[in-house]
Amino acid sequence: MSLLIAGTMAFDAIETPFGKTDKIIGGSATYAAWSASHFTQPIKQISIIGGDFPESEIEALKNRGVSFEGVDVRADEKSFFWSGRYHMDMNTRDTLVTDLNVLEKFDPELPESYQDCEFLMLGNLMPSLQQKIISQLRNRPKLIIMDTMNFWMDIAMDDLKATIKMVDVLMVNDGEARQLSNEYSLVKAAQKIMAMGPKFLIIKKGEHGALLFHGSHVLFSPALPLEEVFDPTGASDTSAGGFIGHLVRTKDISFNKMKTAIIIGSEMDSFVVEKFGHARLTEITTADISHRLNYFVDLVNFDIDLI
Amino acid sequence: MSLLIAGTMAFDAIETPFGKTDKIIGGSATYAAWSASHFTQPIKQISIIGGDFPESEIEALKNRGVSFEGVDVRADEKSFFWSGRYHMDMNTRDTLVTDLNVLEKFDPELPESYQDCEFLMLGNLMPSLQQKIISQLRNRPKLIIMDTMNFWMDIAMDDLKATIKMVDVLMVNDGEARQLSNEYSLVKAAQKIMAMGPKFLIIKKGEHGALLFHGSHVLFSPALPLEEVFDPTGASDTSAGGFIGHLVRTKDISFNKMKTAIIIGSEMDSFVVEKFGHARLTEITTADISHRLNYFVDLVNFDIDLI
Repeated sequence: MSLLIAGTMAFDAIETPFGKTDKIIGGSATYAAWSASHFTQPIKQISIIGGDFPESEIEALKNRGVSFEGVDVRADEKSFFWSGRYHMDMNTRDTLVTDLNVLEKFDPELPESYQDCEFLMLGNLMPSLQQKIISQLRNRPKLIIMDTMNFWMDIAMDDLKATIKMVDVLMVNDGEARQLSNEYSLVKAAQKIMAMGPKFLIIKKGEHGALLFHGSHVLFSPALPLEEVFDPTGASDTSAGGFIGHLVRTKDISFNKMKTAIIIGSEMDSFVVEKFGHARLTEITTADISHRLNYFVDLVNFDIDLI
Repeated sequence: MSLLIAGTMAFDAIETPFGKTDKIIGGSATYAAWSASHFTQPIKQISIIGGDFPESEIEALKNRGVSFEGVDVRADEKSFFWSGRYHMDMNTRDTLVTDLNVLEKFDPELPESYQDCEFLMLGNLMPSLQQKIISQLRNRPKLIIMDTMNFWMDIAMDDLKATIKMVDVLMVNDGEARQLSNEYSLVKAAQKIMAMGPKFLIIKKGEHGALLFHGSHVLFSPALPLEEVFDPTGASDTSAGGFIGHLVRTKDISFNKMKTAIIIGSEMDSFVVEKFGHARLTEITTADISHRLNYFVDLVNFDIDLI
């Protein structure tokens, strides 16, 4: 039973109202792997990096049980680089620089040792690449989770819809759910999107939490109200990593277990935003995770029996 | 043990993406009284209306246990009138017309029979009028809840702060909490606002639910994801009415009971937005309320013991 995570491993340079960074480690698969590694190991990573990606980061991830056999290392080239500036509300941002670098050449090839994966997390990537990964697995995974973004809806909607059809759980934000479904109401949007294929849909709403839909059921997952969101970069990938990490650990993909998993995802999200980059994910312990989970329980704990 | 509700009783004309109305019944105290009457009666109303306010509506409210002894009826004048147009997101709106009419002359005088009130709900009004109502009660109520809006922060901040100091529970939306505290983070905003006097603070976030703060505690109250929000007018007053109605019914003002009360408030809110105006509040039964409450329980029900 192991987890395959596909996505970017990259550098980011970030400006927020609280400060700015030079190039720091980023990428959807980096965040997801760090987050998931708190719940399950080994993790089989699919990505592409340049020779500039720090050896120390590769070692740190390997120490967390992350396999690099499926990571294409292009020694003479540069890793993907993204730079952005967040607005005061931390839900919106401007992209300042996107240097695709090695990402332009990404053509994932699954090593034989990855064929036993039962859980697949597809971080945000070009939909045709996400499809290619799925199609290389001889046995369909027990659960496929897919993240995506509005960019692909703008330029590759047909590919995107074909990919969505192949997955079990789709994750999008509220704006993307509306764009994908052409419905303003998130309840209607969810029904339309689930009719495209995925049996489960997660709609992320940043500081307002997330909604998990399945058939006619819905869970309203809270976000922990924080004194400060220092840097929201990678929050969504971190949340996805916690979500799937928990499912892999429990070996259970029922709706009930997913409800717990989305709370765990939100919890990991509440850690990662406390510092720039993925620093918090490398520091926190199992005890920290258990401790903070109590806040989430209290956050939505009301007594309805007494009415 | 009875409830005093102060606020406007008015006419509204509403445009939403789903349709428009001519003049229909509105006003903060109207919505709050209808909502609260599902949980507690009698209700002692403080407001002002013109001769144009329909007798049928007065009779309907009286049949719900609402006393009009404290409602100033100006037979030869017109009731307060507001007209607005909602944007697609239903969280923002433009005011088209505000005719104060009788509201300009509102100078509340509490009848002797209102002196026994133990719960006071101050709907959105000029802060000096809210203060005047509090100061007329010889015995301080067990609980005073106050709603307000950004308009008073713009033109009467000193009066507003003096009034806030006198109440137990303040209700504002997220933008108003930021404006009042000068803090972007709602957690920091809540701490600053509670330092101004109220021991409890409710921050309303429309479709994203609400947060209830008390000391270092916080409850994340979900909003029911709805297929359609038909008309959000009065949602906040309806929610306040459900909140205080439940507290009066249970005669308990502990934080635990308030957590349940805010869920009840959100539930009443989920009904009222289903039709224009307050129509749903006049139709629903106790059975409807009990039934829908189950959705709220399911909405945030996750199993954390199994981790």
